[in-house]
Amino acid sequence: MTNQQLTSITEADIDDIAIGAAVLGTGGGGDPHVGSLHAKRAIRNHGAVTVLQVEDLDDEGLVVPVGMIGAPSVSIEKIAGAEEIGRALDLLEQGTGRKIAAIMPIEIGGGNSLIPIAAAAERGLPIVDGDAMGRAFPEAQMVTFHLAGYGPGAVVLVDAQGNAVLSYPVDGAWSERLARVLTFEMGGSATMIDYAYPGSVARECAIPGTLTMARDIGRLLRSSTVRDDERIDVMLAKLGGFRLFDGKVSEIERAIQGGFTRGRAVLDGTGSDRGATFELSFQNEMLLGTRNGQVAAVTPDLIAVLDQSTGQPITTETVRYGARVTIVAFPCNPQWRTERGLETAGPAYFGYDVPFTPVEQLAAGALAPAGTDPESVLTLQEARV
Amino acid sequence: MTNQQLTSITEADIDDIAIGAAVLGTGGGGDPHVGSLHAKRAIRNHGAVTVLQVEDLDDEGLVVPVGMIGAPSVSIEKIAGAEEIGRALDLLEQGTGRKIAAIMPIEIGGGNSLIPIAAAAERGLPIVDGDAMGRAFPEAQMVTFHLAGYGPGAVVLVDAQGNAVLSYPVDGAWSERLARVLTFEMGGSATMIDYAYPGSVARECAIPGTLTMARDIGRLLRSSTVRDDERIDVMLAKLGGFRLFDGKVSEIERAIQGGFTRGRAVLDGTGSDRGATFELSFQNEMLLGTRNGQVAAVTPDLIAVLDQSTGQPITTETVRYGARVTIVAFPCNPQWRTERGLETAGPAYFGYDVPFTPVEQLAAGALAPAGTDPESVLTLQEARV
Repeated sequence: MTNQQLTSITEADIDDIAIGAAVLGTGGGGDPHVGSLHAKRAIRNHGAVTVLQVEDLDDEGLVVPVGMIGAPSVSIEKIAGAEEIGRALDLLEQGTGRKIAAIMPIEIGGGNSLIPIAAAAERGLPIVDGDAMGRAFPEAQMVTFHLAGYGPGAVVLVDAQGNAVLSYPVDGAWSERLARVLTFEMGGSATMIDYAYPGSVARECAIPGTLTMARDIGRLLRSSTVRDDERIDVMLAKLGGFRLFDGKVSEIERAIQGGFTRGRAVLDGTGSDRGATFELSFQNEMLLGTRNGQVAAVTPDLIAVLDQSTGQPITTETVRYGARVTIVAFPCNPQWRTERGLETAGPAYFGYDVPFTPVEQLAAGALAPAGTDPESVLTLQEARV
Repeated sequence: MTNQQLTSITEADIDDIAIGAAVLGTGGGGDPHVGSLHAKRAIRNHGAVTVLQVEDLDDEGLVVPVGMIGAPSVSIEKIAGAEEIGRALDLLEQGTGRKIAAIMPIEIGGGNSLIPIAAAAERGLPIVDGDAMGRAFPEAQMVTFHLAGYGPGAVVLVDAQGNAVLSYPVDGAWSERLARVLTFEMGGSATMIDYAYPGSVARECAIPGTLTMARDIGRLLRSSTVRDDERIDVMLAKLGGFRLFDGKVSEIERAIQGGFTRGRAVLDGTGSDRGATFELSFQNEMLLGTRNGQVAAVTPDLIAVLDQSTGQPITTETVRYGARVTIVAFPCNPQWRTERGLETAGPAYFGYDVPFTPVEQLAAGALAPAGTDPESVLTLQEARV
């Protein structure tokens, strides 16, 4: 792909961004469909959104991540209205005593890549081409700001009933604890702002280019010039990713627990994977994939579930019994593979008793015959597709 | 008693206020002992606190109720420090954009009558001789502001870890819900500010004279000129209250549930009550008393447990097996006997399947032989002892 960096986002970009963000969202990040309706409506009413590259951010201007928190199962039903998001931005300005200079996605993933676009359009503000995860994660402290030692700052939660909360948690873990119980009490879903920092800090911490990357992935998966059965392979080649399994969903368990959508899915192999079994575990996002009981990919690396025939991403909410899917995985941003990154979002944090092994190493063992050279794999940070 | 209204509070007043507030607190309101240590220290360091009568409040000046929320079982261990309270007051000023003119107790009850005195001393502010319950109640919306149709306004919660939350709940019920889950997450106890209003509203809603009343009750119960075995009767005569039962605690159940201390106590009768049984139910505060299965007093009327020999009040936290106690009751402020008052804090709200009957009517049935004339009983609002 020879696509250029985004400089503005129009209604025509939204479907691409939504599809690409759903791939990078590893099954979570909120429903992309309702988020895209929201973003399109906002752009239609208020015009295109200017996109700022991370390296161009002004030192002083306040960069504000805004998104939804809660179980995606709930947010499908309860997408935040413009009023709710506007209220959250107002309260953040009140709490910091500063005007917002730019909006940023807190994560690249489903609805949480699209809601900030809607917010930017409604507010007439630019959006930053970057995010604080390079994927989606289920907990609020799982952001690069936290890895760099920054606290959550002034945190805002606003719900559909009209309740508004501005808090100053002592650290990222407390921010997650307080936000999670509040969100649960608010009905399972709320609009959230956290880690609002001046451009100098956002420039230090944000993973650049991820909105453009989402747009490019989506453009590829929706392209009329690529054959359906080639889409996934073209995307994997561009992203340095790996095809882990082709199968049919034979078991699916999903429950809303403690403010998250948790569950597992079991797949029976099809095609060259016939006879094998693959198990996926998720907490909002896909976190662990095992093939015949052996780890095939694990958080913080990205695992995505794609429709086998079209390559379209499927969220943890919409994986259903009988679906024919392809499981793919990508290396995460290198910040997540540091000691602090793995402490924050590695397998042990989520209670999985497996070590973290980079997906390219796992694939080199299992998939080496397929000809992949693990040394040539790009990380997501470098991989501008 | 011919005591005058309080005009200032010195260290010497604190023990009286603590004892009297523990009687009016119906077993709840937070531990009076730790609250009194805190108030004494603050007065020692910062000087006496000026007392304002409710009718003298300036229309515009912001009157700020401050206290503790949570299970008293926890707050005994974790009394708020000056820093925590100061942080809460600062955040309220930030959230309202106004300077605080006066502090007020949200309830007359144990620690929550003493913490505002400490806060006023530390801040060099006057305290209002009144409160928003005329007793203690377990939930945040159980205040006269709510009965008059006022919302909670800007609500502040600060915990011992340093987390600070400023919220704008849509109504009193939401304020209670959000504060309760936050407090639970914060470890079971937090400093809270709610229903901060200008003097004109505080004058409309506050129940006047309750700090003076607490001081006077305490002075009586600690007086060296009243015989121990007469204290309770003198107090009942002055307050229009009723002696319901003398007995020994034979069962006590207490658990921290959902952020409250809940439980029940069973008493075996002593003296003239020998052979009878009395059961008390509580949720932070004593809410229902039955004698041989018949209602003897029920919320919103006040029920207090006193040491049989000294008349000293005993909290729901410190009622213990084998204690010889006297159960007394007082009519609540008439605002609680209105339709909205009973909806908010009557027996049905707490899940007790009994109608509200005023304690003076119940006593007229059960205790009429003792010579009480129910028509002569004063309500707490009128009863300036």
